[in-house]
Amino acid sequence: MKRLFFLTIIAFFSIHSYSQNVNKDDSLVIKKIYDAALLEGKSYDWLDYLSNQIGGRLSGSLQAEKAVKYTELELKELGLDKVWLQPVMVPKWTRGAKEYAYIETAIGETSTTNICALGGSVSTPEGGLKAQVIEVTSLDEIEKLGEENIKGKIVFYNRPMQADLIQTFKAYGGCVDQRYAGAMEAAKYGAVGVVVRSMNLRKDDFPHTGSMTYGDLATHLRIPACAISTNGANYLSSTLKLQPKLKFYFNQTCKTFPDVQSYNVIGEITGTENPNKFIVVGGHLDSWDIGDGSHDDGAGVVQSMEVLRLLKKVNYKPKNSIRVVLFMNEENGLRGGKKYALDAKNKNEDHIFALESDAGGFTPRGFSFDCDEASFNKIVSWKPLFKQYLVHYFEKGGSGADIGPLKKDGIILSGLRPDSQRYFDYHHAASDIFEAVNKRELELGGAAMTSLVYLIDTYF
Amino acid sequence: MKRLFFLTIIAFFSIHSYSQNVNKDDSLVIKKIYDAALLEGKSYDWLDYLSNQIGGRLSGSLQAEKAVKYTELELKELGLDKVWLQPVMVPKWTRGAKEYAYIETAIGETSTTNICALGGSVSTPEGGLKAQVIEVTSLDEIEKLGEENIKGKIVFYNRPMQADLIQTFKAYGGCVDQRYAGAMEAAKYGAVGVVVRSMNLRKDDFPHTGSMTYGDLATHLRIPACAISTNGANYLSSTLKLQPKLKFYFNQTCKTFPDVQSYNVIGEITGTENPNKFIVVGGHLDSWDIGDGSHDDGAGVVQSMEVLRLLKKVNYKPKNSIRVVLFMNEENGLRGGKKYALDAKNKNEDHIFALESDAGGFTPRGFSFDCDEASFNKIVSWKPLFKQYLVHYFEKGGSGADIGPLKKDGIILSGLRPDSQRYFDYHHAASDIFEAVNKRELELGGAAMTSLVYLIDTYF
Repeated sequence: MKRLFFLTIIAFFSIHSYSQNVNKDDSLVIKKIYDAALLEGKSYDWLDYLSNQIGGRLSGSLQAEKAVKYTELELKELGLDKVWLQPVMVPKWTRGAKEYAYIETAIGETSTTNICALGGSVSTPEGGLKAQVIEVTSLDEIEKLGEENIKGKIVFYNRPMQADLIQTFKAYGGCVDQRYAGAMEAAKYGAVGVVVRSMNLRKDDFPHTGSMTYGDLATHLRIPACAISTNGANYLSSTLKLQPKLKFYFNQTCKTFPDVQSYNVIGEITGTENPNKFIVVGGHLDSWDIGDGSHDDGAGVVQSMEVLRLLKKVNYKPKNSIRVVLFMNEENGLRGGKKYALDAKNKNEDHIFALESDAGGFTPRGFSFDCDEASFNKIVSWKPLFKQYLVHYFEKGGSGADIGPLKKDGIILSGLRPDSQRYFDYHHAASDIFEAVNKRELELGGAAMTSLVYLIDTYF
Repeated sequence: MKRLFFLTIIAFFSIHSYSQNVNKDDSLVIKKIYDAALLEGKSYDWLDYLSNQIGGRLSGSLQAEKAVKYTELELKELGLDKVWLQPVMVPKWTRGAKEYAYIETAIGETSTTNICALGGSVSTPEGGLKAQVIEVTSLDEIEKLGEENIKGKIVFYNRPMQADLIQTFKAYGGCVDQRYAGAMEAAKYGAVGVVVRSMNLRKDDFPHTGSMTYGDLATHLRIPACAISTNGANYLSSTLKLQPKLKFYFNQTCKTFPDVQSYNVIGEITGTENPNKFIVVGGHLDSWDIGDGSHDDGAGVVQSMEVLRLLKKVNYKPKNSIRVVLFMNEENGLRGGKKYALDAKNKNEDHIFALESDAGGFTPRGFSFDCDEASFNKIVSWKPLFKQYLVHYFEKGGSGADIGPLKKDGIILSGLRPDSQRYFDYHHAASDIFEAVNKRELELGGAAMTSLVYLIDTYF
């Protein structure tokens, strides 16, 4: 009976807080935001420019510079209170000539296969690298196999993403250690190169790049690493079963240069009551170089810009200062995110909320929150306001890499959570292009973000 | 205080019924269903065959016949208790040669534009039809304009789908009268032809076909009707503003033949306890002819087949008889749906539940239900079982055209509700092809349907 009473009380309070927070005026503001997003949105046009006029925006590239200039100009067009560039030094790694690879059987038959260098990898020796292959499915397996089985070989990491996980980011999290640390671990046992199965749930011919590390490994011990498409990985694996002594050849001419100057792009609507309290909404301006970075993270960039445009459009004057931050160098360094947080700390800027969109421009399902229980419960009480927009997911969870460095007591960090089923079809691959983004899905994400920012500004 | 008590009681009971219905065994069965769907699903391969080996399956066509044979064979492969064909006579309308259209200015400049005949339309006179154009945005406007403004002209219906509606089916419902009844209404005032803006939220070059009616209009009064792409509609509209006397030419050679024999394809797992109580899950096997009908409704067909495959796969022995019904002729006649319901009535078959998937193979968001309050509340109490699968939408609403004729007291009708944002990009257009369907999204829909059927069979 005590339990019954307890449940009753909890239930009552949750209903009570729901009805308290579903304010008619809030509904009207949110309806205006959605209408403005869907009837006269700007995000899709911005994305078209970023993707088709600029293209892939790897840190330190000319395209990344162009993206800085373009978004600065577009933010200025919005008539924000301030727009500025925040300098940050970023790594510069270049892919070089198109990579090339083939599989060679014992009698010298060859079949080419699609690969791309992992971001940060060293090049192969001039003329390429050819060696026998050992297939593994985990980093642990490397340790068990030891130097005797690995020395002089190319290690082929082939653990696929788990298709039975509903949230594809969990499947990604369960595999990405192969890409990130595979070369570092294999090098320790004398491997000469690494081939990693692409982080992709589809069977197709696109290799997917992404960041990797050599850790503290001395420069002369670093070995080249590439990604192979899922079709290529399946072919290599089945061929190895027939011909364990086949050789894999690959050639890549990637190179790391000294760090170069770049920028975070920032725009602000200054708060009317608390100009020194800050709400941040952002995505990352850099992308990988083999697609045009439309989903990762062109979508997050234009949705974040759209948040400030929509707030102005519906004539909302925020209490707190609201900033859009287009972070540079999320993909291979996170320098922009770290720099922004460091500057904020040095200037004693009180950040109360930060929201990142970096999971693709798909239909928004909701948000994840990294914050204290009381704040989370307050936010969850707004769920009914989002119901008619089919935004239903309000759960505790991670936020976004770029805003992570802002974490401190009292801040609420949040991530937009779009539908994730198609994300890894495009992630870090040549298939991540403008045509893969649906205008309405993109716009609905911007509208959901704006609505959340409005509520946070109003009630926190 | 009374209100507080009342709320408390309601809240308590809703929590109580939730915990009562979230049965651990149910969770395990549903997990098995999802795993089987995502790890070894068959629906995507079936769809590949239907779309790429057979193609568009308009009622009465050779392709529709092939689809009947193919799905009958595949259902037999599943080892169901019964598989059979239910004869039904269907209309046969053929599109004829590729349609052709252009806009001609006063001085004789022409620009071609993309059109397609509406399903059921008569042909243009041999050699085509050319006339001045009057643009309208509603059927009412026709009546106001009257014969003096309409006689001898082509009526151009140009009311766009409303982009601010979150559920795109509502936007479709708000426009489709132009396509369905536009020619019938315009003919009454002496129009010679009709051009209808495609039911599409995108701006692109695809014309979208669909059904239309002439009602009781005498054969000699029937006028040809076509759909124009959204880009074409915008071009025609803006050109009309500059050149109100421009002429529109179109040529189409479509033709209606006498009805022909076709079939619903039916498979059954016979119930262990109530073999004479029936649960139906289905989609429609016919499609329009200009795409391959992958989303509309190849997806619904293969998901429905998958429901029975998955139930067998997880070794579930249903209490009630569970049927998959692949309905013929939803698009231009609904003869299959009507025939199935009539036969069921004549045989006194007690149908307790019917579920249709006919809204595309996109990520499933939930289900709509057409049923009594008590059944609805019972079903809603299962929501927690679906939460981890991100299936959240359980609302009262329509179900599906094919199962509509089964409606009677005591039956629960339900429709799968996938994300609808992209649906009208493809609906009834040449863009509705296999490549537009994502494997995981399709599979998740089949898993959600199977889980619901399992729960209905167990608890009703």
